[in-house]
Amino acid sequence: MALLQQLTRQVHFKCIRSLSSLRYEDLQITLTSSPSSKPDDSKLKFGAHTADHMLEVDWSAQYGWGVPQIKPVAPLQIHPAAKVLHYAAELFEGMKAYRCVDGKIRMFRPTENMKRMGKTAQRSALPDFDQAEFLKCIKKLISIDHEWVPQSKNCSLYVRPTFIGTEPALGVTASNMAKLFVITGPVGPYFPTGLKPVSLLADPKYVRAWPGGCGGYKMGSNYAPTVAIQSQAVNKYGCQQVLWLYGEDHQMTEVGTMNLFVYWVNEQGEEELITPPLETGLILPGVTRKSLLELSREWNEFKVSEQTMTMKSFIKALNEGRVKEVFGAGTACVVCPVSKILYLDQELLIKTDTENSLTQRFFSEITDIHYYRKPHPWMEAIDEDVEETNLMTECHS
Amino acid sequence: MALLQQLTRQVHFKCIRSLSSLRYEDLQITLTSSPSSKPDDSKLKFGAHTADHMLEVDWSAQYGWGVPQIKPVAPLQIHPAAKVLHYAAELFEGMKAYRCVDGKIRMFRPTENMKRMGKTAQRSALPDFDQAEFLKCIKKLISIDHEWVPQSKNCSLYVRPTFIGTEPALGVTASNMAKLFVITGPVGPYFPTGLKPVSLLADPKYVRAWPGGCGGYKMGSNYAPTVAIQSQAVNKYGCQQVLWLYGEDHQMTEVGTMNLFVYWVNEQGEEELITPPLETGLILPGVTRKSLLELSREWNEFKVSEQTMTMKSFIKALNEGRVKEVFGAGTACVVCPVSKILYLDQELLIKTDTENSLTQRFFSEITDIHYYRKPHPWMEAIDEDVEETNLMTECHS
Repeated sequence: MALLQQLTRQVHFKCIRSLSSLRYEDLQITLTSSPSSKPDDSKLKFGAHTADHMLEVDWSAQYGWGVPQIKPVAPLQIHPAAKVLHYAAELFEGMKAYRCVDGKIRMFRPTENMKRMGKTAQRSALPDFDQAEFLKCIKKLISIDHEWVPQSKNCSLYVRPTFIGTEPALGVTASNMAKLFVITGPVGPYFPTGLKPVSLLADPKYVRAWPGGCGGYKMGSNYAPTVAIQSQAVNKYGCQQVLWLYGEDHQMTEVGTMNLFVYWVNEQGEEELITPPLETGLILPGVTRKSLLELSREWNEFKVSEQTMTMKSFIKALNEGRVKEVFGAGTACVVCPVSKILYLDQELLIKTDTENSLTQRFFSEITDIHYYRKPHPWMEAIDEDVEETNLMTECHS
Repeated sequence: MALLQQLTRQVHFKCIRSLSSLRYEDLQITLTSSPSSKPDDSKLKFGAHTADHMLEVDWSAQYGWGVPQIKPVAPLQIHPAAKVLHYAAELFEGMKAYRCVDGKIRMFRPTENMKRMGKTAQRSALPDFDQAEFLKCIKKLISIDHEWVPQSKNCSLYVRPTFIGTEPALGVTASNMAKLFVITGPVGPYFPTGLKPVSLLADPKYVRAWPGGCGGYKMGSNYAPTVAIQSQAVNKYGCQQVLWLYGEDHQMTEVGTMNLFVYWVNEQGEEELITPPLETGLILPGVTRKSLLELSREWNEFKVSEQTMTMKSFIKALNEGRVKEVFGAGTACVVCPVSKILYLDQELLIKTDTENSLTQRFFSEITDIHYYRKPHPWMEAIDEDVEETNLMTECHS
């Protein structure tokens, strides 16, 4: 009898534990009975294709984390009063998995994304979650949909972890219910025929982020305000992206949804790579940004600075022939050269014709790492032969 | 044969037309077979109860507006890649319908909300819609759920029009698919036992809106960043709301989700009602704000200004005994008196004890209008006896 009580307690404890924290070992898997046909690698567009399965796990303030589930992609059932639909209780991450030259699938620095996701959740008043366990579930999802990871060495599987507040109650307060989910999809190269420079609209009328705001977090709320401005840049000004300025001194902050880099000769005559600093809260701490800074500090061939750059000092340098390159950096493109900035009434032209550019060198170096042509500890392997996870049926009576 | 062709063309034209714009006459209605029991008026909480029916209408770039539908409230089916879940492609309005003293149901200035919703849609890169037709559909929804409009003369039916981008495609671009929907629910009085003053945390570290941003539009993205700060105000500082400051001179902008009003004697010795101006883009153009300004200009008893007020000039006035009242104004509470502001290390105390206060006068005046104790053209009646809309079945073969 004492033994039975002890066992009962153990099972009870296990169930409580499985409800209160997000655990990989609780993962339940339901495979699709009607797999979709995979698109041709040569026809991939960003965001247009979704792989067969998704990962989903719900949280409530009352019960904590539920059972993570991998299942066929299907519409989410969301109550019309859910906070995500009214108050933008939502955040996301963007990561990629690559089919490497040894045939294995690897992700690029996923732990960085998980750390950032945890910080964004805190800023968004969404609950904390075990990031390592969640990442294990994500890897399992990729492993199950491994046939969706393109074979081409300029394609990849885009991975989109998303976190939304689902409590069906109007009122601007923290959501007592939430859902973490992950969808994936194959994506083609941002530049199918080599790096192609873009033009930017820099209009100080529109501001992406500001001190005391949330520009340093990957919250959905940072993006909605940018869409109409991006459309205007394209349709009214014939530019491809927006260069976001901030402040009366027109600080250069971000490029579209990318971090900004300027490679120049500074006032002191030193070669220097500059990107805006994180401390202002205006800049998203990009994983590609961090990687480029780490690589170039390791190379130790030029000065590397996280520092504010104003349009005035940029234009002065441009006029003095000191600007070598300008580029954006992000998960979608790795790096994206900039050839033109439309600023007030000026058309600022930037050199981009050097095949031996730093932009090109970063692109080659990072993609060599992505596809494991240069083995690197930044890449985390995904085992395609992992055993099927045990289904913890004893907790679901 | 010519006649047949002509008829076919007419039917075709009609279908095209019904698809391309939002029209009340297309409205389809499906009533619930299991109405919920209505909550007791004395137990109503904001946002906790939803009436039986909702209004829903979909839009696509390809086909325009579809058929508006009133149907039982049910979860929305939203694709996990829908833009609303990732990039906060969403906006809303807050309106109320009142059971007036003559037994009729009326809405308070709904056309103002519709106009603002149209402007917000444009800023959000969501499509335009016929606001008058949409309002007719909303009135029909309220008419159908008329039993949900509380009888008590301090309760009302809260009406929440919402607009979301539903296109299932990752990528920060305008959504090619969207959904307008409306839910309603009975709400109790914000102050069940008379106006009750609140305390505010004014911390210049956190900024709600900024020039070049979207603070002047009712986008979901304005709210997510405020939730964690509001929690902090309550849990860490024991305040009830946040007073949002902006700029190095700590301009007073909004109170929680309300517009801010200060009633004082200005430096020139004049009695003056001040609220921050709309031109900066920092302030939501509230319908209650507009109504209070219009009322007080009509009274013509004191100066009325839309003007920036800094913490410095506010504290000076407070120290000189020139601050008469501070209050927030919004749909939820009408007006909400402020008794204390916690600013840096100072606890600023504000008089609120006058029964003959301006705050109380505004509250009485506006609620007299709401419940039609004072008939006023701001109120729009809802006919509870409208005929059932014809179902346009011929377009749905």
